[in-house]
Amino acid sequence: MNTSISQTAETGHPSPLRYAGCDSTTAIRYRSDVDAVRVFPCKTETHDDAETVFERAGPRAQLIGEPEKMTAAILTCGGLCPGLNDVLRGLVMSLSHHYGVPRILGIRYGYAGLTDGGLSPWELTPDSVDEIHRDGGTMLGTSRGAQNVGEMADWILKQGITQLYIIGGDGTQRGALELSQELARRARPVNVIGIPKTVDNDIMWVDQSFGYDTAVEIAARVISDAHVEARSTERGVGIVKVMGRDSGFIAAGAAIASQEANVVLVPEVEFDFDGPNGLLTYLEKRLERKDHVVIVVAEGAGQRHFKQQGREVKDASGNVLHRDIGELLCERIHRHFQTLEKPVKLKYLDPGYSVRSAPACATDRIYCTRLAHAAVHAAMAGRTAMMVSRWSGHYVHVPLELVTKGRRRIDPTGSLWRTVLEATGQPCLNHGEGRC
Amino acid sequence: MNTSISQTAETGHPSPLRYAGCDSTTAIRYRSDVDAVRVFPCKTETHDDAETVFERAGPRAQLIGEPEKMTAAILTCGGLCPGLNDVLRGLVMSLSHHYGVPRILGIRYGYAGLTDGGLSPWELTPDSVDEIHRDGGTMLGTSRGAQNVGEMADWILKQGITQLYIIGGDGTQRGALELSQELARRARPVNVIGIPKTVDNDIMWVDQSFGYDTAVEIAARVISDAHVEARSTERGVGIVKVMGRDSGFIAAGAAIASQEANVVLVPEVEFDFDGPNGLLTYLEKRLERKDHVVIVVAEGAGQRHFKQQGREVKDASGNVLHRDIGELLCERIHRHFQTLEKPVKLKYLDPGYSVRSAPACATDRIYCTRLAHAAVHAAMAGRTAMMVSRWSGHYVHVPLELVTKGRRRIDPTGSLWRTVLEATGQPCLNHGEGRC
Amino acid sequence: MNTSISQTAETGHPSPLRYAGCDSTTAIRYRSDVDAVRVFPCKTETHDDAETVFERAGPRAQLIGEPEKMTAAILTCGGLCPGLNDVLRGLVMSLSHHYGVPRILGIRYGYAGLTDGGLSPWELTPDSVDEIHRDGGTMLGTSRGAQNVGEMADWILKQGITQLYIIGGDGTQRGALELSQELARRARPVNVIGIPKTVDNDIMWVDQSFGYDTAVEIAARVISDAHVEARSTERGVGIVKVMGRDSGFIAAGAAIASQEANVVLVPEVEFDFDGPNGLLTYLEKRLERKDHVVIVVAEGAGQRHFKQQGREVKDASGNVLHRDIGELLCERIHRHFQTLEKPVKLKYLDPGYSVRSAPACATDRIYCTRLAHAAVHAAMAGRTAMMVSRWSGHYVHVPLELVTKGRRRIDPTGSLWRTVLEATGQPCLNHGEGRC
Amino acid sequence: MNTSISQTAETGHPSPLRYAGCDSTTAIRYRSDVDAVRVFPCKTETHDDAETVFERAGPRAQLIGEPEKMTAAILTCGGLCPGLNDVLRGLVMSLSHHYGVPRILGIRYGYAGLTDGGLSPWELTPDSVDEIHRDGGTMLGTSRGAQNVGEMADWILKQGITQLYIIGGDGTQRGALELSQELARRARPVNVIGIPKTVDNDIMWVDQSFGYDTAVEIAARVISDAHVEARSTERGVGIVKVMGRDSGFIAAGAAIASQEANVVLVPEVEFDFDGPNGLLTYLEKRLERKDHVVIVVAEGAGQRHFKQQGREVKDASGNVLHRDIGELLCERIHRHFQTLEKPVKLKYLDPGYSVRSAPACATDRIYCTRLAHAAVHAAMAGRTAMMVSRWSGHYVHVPLELVTKGRRRIDPTGSLWRTVLEATGQPCLNHGEGRC
Repeated sequence: MNTSISQTAETGHPSPLRYAGCDSTTAIRYRSDVDAVRVFPCKTETHDDAETVFERAGPRAQLIGEPEKMTAAILTCGGLCPGLNDVLRGLVMSLSHHYGVPRILGIRYGYAGLTDGGLSPWELTPDSVDEIHRDGGTMLGTSRGAQNVGEMADWILKQGITQLYIIGGDGTQRGALELSQELARRARPVNVIGIPKTVDNDIMWVDQSFGYDTAVEIAARVISDAHVEARSTERGVGIVKVMGRDSGFIAAGAAIASQEANVVLVPEVEFDFDGPNGLLTYLEKRLERKDHVVIVVAEGAGQRHFKQQGREVKDASGNVLHRDIGELLCERIHRHFQTLEKPVKLKYLDPGYSVRSAPACATDRIYCTRLAHAAVHAAMAGRTAMMVSRWSGHYVHVPLELVTKGRRRIDPTGSLWRTVLEATGQPCLNHGEGRC
Repeated sequence: MNTSISQTAETGHPSPLRYAGCDSTTAIRYRSDVDAVRVFPCKTETHDDAETVFERAGPRAQLIGEPEKMTAAILTCGGLCPGLNDVLRGLVMSLSHHYGVPRILGIRYGYAGLTDGGLSPWELTPDSVDEIHRDGGTMLGTSRGAQNVGEMADWILKQGITQLYIIGGDGTQRGALELSQELARRARPVNVIGIPKTVDNDIMWVDQSFGYDTAVEIAARVISDAHVEARSTERGVGIVKVMGRDSGFIAAGAAIASQEANVVLVPEVEFDFDGPNGLLTYLEKRLERKDHVVIVVAEGAGQRHFKQQGREVKDASGNVLHRDIGELLCERIHRHFQTLEKPVKLKYLDPGYSVRSAPACATDRIYCTRLAHAAVHAAMAGRTAMMVSRWSGHYVHVPLELVTKGRRRIDPTGSLWRTVLEATGQPCLNHGEGRC
Repeated sequence: MNTSISQTAETGHPSPLRYAGCDSTTAIRYRSDVDAVRVFPCKTETHDDAETVFERAGPRAQLIGEPEKMTAAILTCGGLCPGLNDVLRGLVMSLSHHYGVPRILGIRYGYAGLTDGGLSPWELTPDSVDEIHRDGGTMLGTSRGAQNVGEMADWILKQGITQLYIIGGDGTQRGALELSQELARRARPVNVIGIPKTVDNDIMWVDQSFGYDTAVEIAARVISDAHVEARSTERGVGIVKVMGRDSGFIAAGAAIASQEANVVLVPEVEFDFDGPNGLLTYLEKRLERKDHVVIVVAEGAGQRHFKQQGREVKDASGNVLHRDIGELLCERIHRHFQTLEKPVKLKYLDPGYSVRSAPACATDRIYCTRLAHAAVHAAMAGRTAMMVSRWSGHYVHVPLELVTKGRRRIDPTGSLWRTVLEATGQPCLNHGEGRC
Repeated sequence: MNTSISQTAETGHPSPLRYAGCDSTTAIRYRSDVDAVRVFPCKTETHDDAETVFERAGPRAQLIGEPEKMTAAILTCGGLCPGLNDVLRGLVMSLSHHYGVPRILGIRYGYAGLTDGGLSPWELTPDSVDEIHRDGGTMLGTSRGAQNVGEMADWILKQGITQLYIIGGDGTQRGALELSQELARRARPVNVIGIPKTVDNDIMWVDQSFGYDTAVEIAARVISDAHVEARSTERGVGIVKVMGRDSGFIAAGAAIASQEANVVLVPEVEFDFDGPNGLLTYLEKRLERKDHVVIVVAEGAGQRHFKQQGREVKDASGNVLHRDIGELLCERIHRHFQTLEKPVKLKYLDPGYSVRSAPACATDRIYCTRLAHAAVHAAMAGRTAMMVSRWSGHYVHVPLELVTKGRRRIDPTGSLWRTVLEATGQPCLNHGEGRC
């Protein structure tokens, strides 16, 4: 057994946590540090199936220090995702109400706010965050891209920050790990806690990331819109592009939820345009039979169809920039049926910004709140260089080293993709080279 | 006073209308044919302000013939619009339940279904339409473009159709007028009733067209998404393109409703990009002051910025095809701030299909039902070559000749546009050549 | 012609209204004081059909005084209604941005806040109201019941208030009229402007009151819930009680919108329980034929079935308190079918608070904003003792005397009720004594 | 280790499952029967913590028989729950499209339809269920209460039914177990598969039951309505009663999601009205401090406050009928503050029917579809007397014996209840007798 307890700073201060008005401490079952969650085998490209356990999240009886001397800082990085404000709100509420931390800094526009060049942080209070859960986006603002780790460490220490909550994707968490290492080198007790954020649902060792339920809800509605459009004309083809750079979870989930998608294209499963097993031939048959078709495509699907010459282009966070598969689909489908003299009516929908800027649905609100409280309990107990997560339904601590080693992807032989095939009736769309 | 009573066929059959189970006729106040609605002055390019009255809609005591010998046909033309299925449902329910018309044909894919080349019509019954109001789109399918009037008249008479309900925009209603004239020439009593459909809200002599409330609701939510996106980054610019070929009603309504639009661009009011009063200068000031801005643009705005050489391009319905002002805005704004070395983060949202394919909201459902019933009452009473409408809040009959003479547009000196200016704080964005 | 121009204080100050950045005044078409809207005959119990005209709303070139010396106050009275915060926001934005009024007081909890016993008012600014439109309810709080007019006048003058916006129902507007008369007696130029608020949609001389669209949307969804419940069991009976003390507009609108109501009971149309034309007999037939039925009942329907002994009970606002018709329906229906040995499964839904506390839908937001701006323009131009309204689609000024003379009710012989009968197929449910 | 593989009938027919058009079988990873999911300790009143494993759900290579000779039957029992139609749709689609089962019977109104006295079953096809997921409720109808097991077995065998899908709560699953035992006694190979349905989320060995996400979404909105109402008046008290007979999961989830609940009362945690730690004293303090309070109460909370004399009353399904805690709360709170001469304004909301009759949200749609497919795969592979479930995020088979041994309840010392305390700030509301 491979025990992955995240780093624990020395502890020693009794926790002030007494849920309002309770005389006894019976309301809380403090977690002992050996209470662990067994990790189900999670087959990925980068990990073997060795059994691992994660430390359970939750309040501890001993804290790393006196809360009234602490300063917390919070930042959000990368693209928007439903639930960011719920996490912010949960952090501030827990720091203030549960532990009485007196100073909470809201860092502006991601890592850029941890440098002298950034905007000054805001002081956050329960009042200032009380109603932000109703809004999409992040009240702190966000940005992409890294900053110099040394400069950030300087700034953090200069500000007297004792704990840092970093909400972002795998790139962001890599940065969090480096920052925690730099701070450790300086032997200063700053607890760095990551909170995994990815609307694509592709962070390792997270059951499902916050915002995903909301994203699927909204994307499914847009698939229904495409279905209405496709059915209302002769030979109607609706194409919906959804987020999913390397992982097609939103495409898969929204397609199943809508019950109205006929073809789903994801990065994990290759497809051909041409040939007897290709997409275009399948569309011909489908239109012959049903006169309409709805295609859901993840933005990262079919990238091999772009004959990329030279180097890949990357964005400020280091993510490979993808060519627009939605436009390629429109062009290839339009051309194909023009050539056959059976023109189709194409409707292309790209709801990306509306999906990611939505306020969180109820289940995401609950999840964000619980993640946020877990993050605060972890920092107060002295954990660092770790990420809070929900794994097999349990809230746990995951070491940041594990997180940064890969991305979670749909298993083409697993039950989620099987349900996509079952729900759409879509065939294998390639020459059998890969899994379909 | 200029009385515009629509053409009335001879009547003479007592109406069978007895609201279920009522022994007395007191439940119904039959409209007399001289009961009229005074037309408020409606200033347009094509009409003077002469006072006109419209005949009130509603059931008449005498019908044009025996309902049990009638055959009704219904078709939907042009683009989708929320509420189409509600109108279809209302027509079928009224024909069947209120009058007992035994044969109701659902024409497939617009005018194309009125020819031998089209698909065969469906027989519609209360059961087949009972739940269609929950779906967006039109169960009958739709298409753009005209057909030969003589051929359609032949087909209609061959099918034994005695009344025809045509749901569509001003182009469609022009076709309905020609068709009714052709049928009149053949001295066959086919009652042709138009039901005005335009998601742009631009048909003449209609208070507000069905689907507009729904369209505004959905477009306003997308403006909020753009606002969230723009506020979550530094120098964020959100651009939302909404429908509105010649009239900016959706842009205006959704902008006011969202309370989050900062600039509204519509076809009725010119704007400059450059110069001290131009859009780009205003955006500079706005970003300086607030760091974000949300622009709502109707698809037909700013067309003069495309140096159109040669002839205009038209679609199958004869509408001038517009160049994409949304993309031009993105390009000009991006370039401008690049040049200034103050780059902005642009988010461009184009929710068109989602707006028009939505199921109708409650107020549109009520409106569609009332229009549909009014249309059936009109046909049963022998009216033809007219359109049902709501005018100054009253359901009326409007002669098709009036409808086809222009399009309804926002009055730049009227109170709707004034509210846009009041709500956004946007200045005059041109050199004072036109109204701002 | 009976001209109802509302009282106008002397004017004389040129308006500062220049929509942001416009050099010319061409952006505004100032209303002249003789520009009027003709009143369509509105048959009510208290008014004859004499033609009346209302002054059009909108900005005037001359103001009653210098805006920078003014103090505005705003209050909300009576029950909640969707859109209250939108009206508040619109008033503050217009007072501050359009006219530069420096001091705007938000009166707490209705008329009670206009006395020494009430809570101190809040100072309102554009920032403090910027996002309140997303919330239902009223940020100022509300209360029922009157206060001493003299005391309120004293308090208002002591505070230096120069204009007062009173948002409330007909009882509230009666209070506003008395207050304006008392202030007039003291010869102090306080402009009292009413903004009609009634979720029941029953204020006279208002096309449709704000919040009604939202209320219908939500009530229609609950009718669908009742329909689902009723259809999922054998002999299912769904009963939905909606607001509507004296007027059944919500019941009628929501029933039509849902397309799923089978019986609608409103205060304006009597119904019998017993007898061959009674409700119970109709339910028997309906259950025989369809096995389920959905009844929508306005709270004020069927009050004669309560044998009220002694005096009527009134609430703090003087409204007659109604006995619960929903419970009576449940009891009578349950008992009737028990007696017949054909028991039914009753599901009773009472969504009142959810209907009235909802945030406004898009169309109500637009409407509230336009009413609020109209109210400010009226006060700035010196109007008093009047109410802003939309009448036949136009924004107008209505003298408060007119408003307080009755309530708007459904005309049982008009086209709205006819559509209810047409949409539900419901028969006349009384012995023919009244209209069905 | 305690292996709980459910009963497996003999298998031997190769599965026809080839996802449309795939030549190879590589698209499917058939489950072997020894692939198992380890059960996390689940502390309940009736179970010890012994480690158990569940068989994983999914298609098997060998089937129990030839699909073309099978007849499936489906029924829904007990109260409504969001997602019922999604499960029905998924079952029919999988039986028909994946396996080619030619005859699928929809049993009417629950167990009553499995007897000669019930309505005749419907034949279900992919077309007849294609759009039912948009509707709440169950297209088959439902009823409560048991039927004679022998009679049902007779009827089932007479109809030639070879597999039976029973969707219902723990009472229903007890019936399913008895029925499967009776059928086993007759040595007839009818595969009985349970699908757990409980809007209360209280079935054992189910992570979370379908419909719960939707229920929480809707209940959370009603809590927001109560919050709006409570805040809009002086001393406003909003009370929302939600479903939860023995388990407070909806109350807990909706309270956290809304972020606006101040007190949550559930069956698992006792509360006192009186005394220094009692609810009424806490409300006094809360109103003093904040002037409003929102209470969320599960219907089964506080039952000891009803001095139940004599026997418990049970409904047709054998569930103990609870007295109305919502009304008791209203009465006690009203009286308490009347006595203190500080009357409160109570708003009581009871949205039960709207919660359970809603169409499923996207995540519930996905879940229902996956459960339904898993159920069909299980029956085709010959499983019986088992229930499909999601456990620790994995789809598994759970023997019906386990299911019927208790109910899942909130652990008052666990992290969900801790989050409720953390999110509301509510204290221990009893004399420390139980956990708070």
